[in-house]
Formats: sequence, C-alpha cells, structure tokens
Amino acid sequence: MSADTRFQEAATALGYSFDGELKVGGNYVPLMRDGTTLYVSGQVPRVGSTVVVTGRVGAEVVLVDAQVAAKVCAMRALALLQRELGSLENLRQVLRVTVYTQCTADFTHHSEVADGASELLHAVLGEAGKHTRTSVGVYQLPKNASVELDLIASSRL
Amino acid sequence: MSADTRFQEAATALGYSFDGELKVGGNYVPLMRDGTTLYVSGQVPRVGSTVVVTGRVGAEVVLVDAQVAAKVCAMRALALLQRELGSLENLRQVLRVTVYTQCTADFTHHSEVADGASELLHAVLGEAGKHTRTSVGVYQLPKNASVELDLIASSRL
Amino acid sequence: MSADTRFQEAATALGYSFDGELKVGGNYVPLMRDGTTLYVSGQVPRVGSTVVVTGRVGAEVVLVDAQVAAKVCAMRALALLQRELGSLENLRQVLRVTVYTQCTADFTHHSEVADGASELLHAVLGEAGKHTRTSVGVYQLPKNASVELDLIASSRL
Repeated sequence: MSADTRFQEAATALGYSFDGELKVGGNYVPLMRDGTTLYVSGQVPRVGSTVVVTGRVGAEVVLVDAQVAAKVCAMRALALLQRELGSLENLRQVLRVTVYTQCTADFTHHSEVADGASELLHAVLGEAGKHTRTSVGVYQLPKNASVELDLIASSRL
Repeated sequence: MSADTRFQEAATALGYSFDGELKVGGNYVPLMRDGTTLYVSGQVPRVGSTVVVTGRVGAEVVLVDAQVAAKVCAMRALALLQRELGSLENLRQVLRVTVYTQCTADFTHHSEVADGASELLHAVLGEAGKHTRTSVGVYQLPKNASVELDLIASSRL
Repeated sequence: MSADTRFQEAATALGYSFDGELKVGGNYVPLMRDGTTLYVSGQVPRVGSTVVVTGRVGAEVVLVDAQVAAKVCAMRALALLQRELGSLENLRQVLRVTVYTQCTADFTHHSEVADGASELLHAVLGEAGKHTRTSVGVYQLPKNASVELDLIASSRL
C-alpha cells in the first residue's frame, strides 16, 4: 500500500477531507523548497476555512482532542508535501517537527499531544516518517488554535 | 531599483537607521553560514541599544505597534544578510521565518503581527522575499520585547 | 585536549553523567541526519529518567539554576552528536540553537538563561561551538522542565 493510500485512509479515519484549497492565514507561502529540503509553514488544525480544535489544552480542551488537533496539523503538512512532490512516495524523510500547544500554566503533557502528530506521520510514511521533534507549551496561537505544527523534510528528487 | 535601495527606503519609512553595530543580547553570533544556507539569530526590535517596542501585545501594545516591531526585527535580519552577502541581490530566497509575539491570554492576531515582517520582506526582496512562516504567541521575550523573529535563507553564492 | 575530553570535564563539573541511555519523552528519534546536516530533538534537562530542573524561572527557579538546566540540555545534545559522529571532533559547526524557558509573566532574562548553554557549547567545542540562537519565554514545557533546547549542526563527514 502506498503512502498516498495510507494518507487517504488517515483522512477517512479522522473524518476530514484535505482535498480542497489549504488556506494560509497570512502573507506567506505554505511550502518552500531549497534543493531537496522542504520547509512547511506552521499549520493550525484548519479544515476548509474552519479551525476545528480551538482553546486552551488542559482547560476547555482535553488531551485526546489536542491529539486530534495535532493529527489534523500533520495531515495538512502531508497534503502540502503531496501536492509539491506529486506523491508522498517521493518524500525521503521528515527531518524536524515542532509542535506548539496552547496550554494552561500547569499542563505538562505536551509530548503526549505531539505524539498524535508523530504517530500519524509514522502510520502514513513508515520509515520516512521518523523525525526529530520539539514540543513546547505556548500562551496563545493564531486563531485560538489549540495546536500548531511546522516541519522540515527532504525529498528523493 | 535594487533590493539594497529598497532596504534603505524601508529604513527611511520606519524612521530608523540600521547602519551601526547590530548588537546581540548574549553569547552567540548573529548569523551563521552553512554552504548556501544562512541562519539568522532571533532578532528583537532593537535599534542601536534600545528595544523600541516592548510590552504585551493585546494589552499595552496595540496591533499596529506590534507590526512595526515585526518590521524592525525583519530589517535587522536583512541588515545582517546584507553585510554577510555584500548585497541583498545575492540573497536567493528567504526559506523560513518564525515570529514570536509576546501577547495576552486571548490575543489571536499573531498572523497579522507577522504580516508586518512578511510584507517588509516582500517589499524589499520581491520574489526572493517569499517564505514559509510560523507565528506563535509566547509568554515573554528577551528584554520584554513585544516581538522576536528568526529566519533561514539561502544565498546565490 | 579533544572536544571529547572537554565534554567529560563539563559533565564532571556539572556533577552528572551522560553515559547511559538518553531517554526521549515520546514517539520520535533524538537525532536525524540529512547529508552533513544534523537535527537534534528538543532536550529537557533530563539525567537518566529524572528531569533535574523543573518549575517556572523567575518564581521557584532562580537564574543560576535555569542556567544549569540550559547546560544539561546542551550536554544531552552534545552526547547525542558524539554518539552519532563517533567523536565531537567530527562536528563541523553548531548552526542554530533555540532555547525555550518556562518563565513568569515578567521574566526578561531569557538571554542570560540561554548563555548557560552557549558558554558550554563554546567551552566544549571551541570555534565549532559558535552558533546562531533564538531565546523565548514559554508558558509551559514537557514534564514541567524549566528549559528546553534544540539545535541544528553540521558534520565534517
């Protein structure tokens, strides 16, 4: 089964489609390529024009919902990479993922939130989905998003 | 008109000079080169020895002032790149920009703050100023700065 | 004296050993290599299975303890690089360091916290330890760590 098929299965499992335009929230581009290195902009859990998980994790947002948010961010990043590369099979390796969680003052399960994204990357990409990661808890995020994720990857081409 | 001329015009429009020493606030270097990849350290809106925009955005700092702060950070980054490369015409592409905004608990216009920096990069660099971007809201910043920005770029040489 | 010897001396000075397994707190890898570029995951000041400096800097954690935390994070990053490269002598250059400090609303000495890490990198690696840096103050960190640090470096090989 190809990474592209697994991507579609992950979208179905989440109950969201990533087929349409992937809106960005400002004056920048969603992906930039430098040789074989690919930079993906910070992704909030937006589907269509709606940020589907908003609010502070540890207060009105519970861990499982934050993990879904992290998965949606990761799916958006994968959708952008798929469009750039034609197929996720052309992705050589995810190199670095940074996961920002909008949290309460005493929330300390940022790694568990980020695991939502990491597990999705592994499930879709297999070995190419392994990555280094940084997880931090921030005070706020654009559009009151609960989670934001950016990444750097490399392509085979 | 060259990117260097547009840089001077942007400095004039902001009313600040970026000609002198670009002070860093600790034991590190402002720019590091690895082949054609250029890493610029986190820039606060410092002009000379003064951080010109301080305080929490959404409280004592309003959006337009935060956007000016973002522009000053971007100008510092450009000044560093210009010194390294001799001319901004030798900059191939801005690849990634991260914008940290010191904000209130309910401030959600981080993208609009970061647009200040993005618009400046586009105005000075044109196509080479396009970039991926991550915007987050943080609890505090060095020297009580309202905004901090770092970036990765590539050079033609 | 080699960088590896200086690394051991720094471990002795801190009173911690970095010989055992370097545990990561989630579903990711601690280091990823892309050609000569090395990405190191976000490191909290964990020694063995204990995060040795926890809590909010500016409140229950004072500056000197936060600087120790930053040093421990940097030592973990160096230990990972040493294992990957066989010797720290094969490290060409630290390129970028990001230091996240869990702080109070009015703590503004993030650069001084990060200097703990920067001084250690210089002491162990000499010229190869010079780096660009971004320091920010965040609301929380995984495992209530006071400091988290990630980095990008390049190797000679």
